[in-house]
Amino acid sequence: MNVIKVSARSRTAAVAGAIAGVMREAHRAEVQAIGAGAVNQALKATIIAKGYLEEEDVYIVCTPSFVDIEIDGQERTAIRLLIEPRP
Amino acid sequence: MNVIKVSARSRTAAVAGAIAGVMREAHRAEVQAIGAGAVNQALKATIIAKGYLEEEDVYIVCTPSFVDIEIDGQERTAIRLLIEPRP
Repeated sequence: MNVIKVSARSRTAAVAGAIAGVMREAHRAEVQAIGAGAVNQALKATIIAKGYLEEEDVYIVCTPSFVDIEIDGQERTAIRLLIEPRP
Repeated sequence: MNVIKVSARSRTAAVAGAIAGVMREAHRAEVQAIGAGAVNQALKATIIAKGYLEEEDVYIVCTPSFVDIEIDGQERTAIRLLIEPRP
C-alpha cells in the first residue's frame, strides 16, 4: 500500500481527500509525518477525512506508531497513522 | 471523564503514564492539545502508552476530533484524541 506522506506545508484538505480516496479503494490508509508541523497537518487531515467518510457511513479509527526511516542517509523517526474502518 | 491536557512542553513519558493509568481505570481516555507542538507530544505519548498497554494485552485505537474551546475569552480549536480499546 502506498503511504501518504505529509509535510508541514501540506494542505489539509488535499491530504484529507487523499485519505478518503485511499479508504474508498483499499479500506485502509497509512499517513506518515516527520516533525511537529507535519504531524499536526496529518492529524487535522485525518479528522477532515473522517468527516467526509462519515457522510458515506464509514467510521474510522486510527492507530499511531513510530517508524524508523532513512532520509538522505540519516535515520529519522516518523509517525505513522494507520487508518481503518472501526472494527 | 477528565481530559488529559497536553502542551508543547509536556514530557511524553509523563503523558503516556497518565494515558495508561486512565485506560486502566476507566477503559477510555481523552487527550487534548492546541497547536502543532502540543499535538505532536500528544500523539507521541499515545504511541508510548500503546506500548505500555500492549504489555497488558490491551490494544488501543484512537479517534481524533476538533473541539472548540474558550481560553481567556478567545475561541481556540483544540485537537482531541479519544483513546479506547480496539472494539
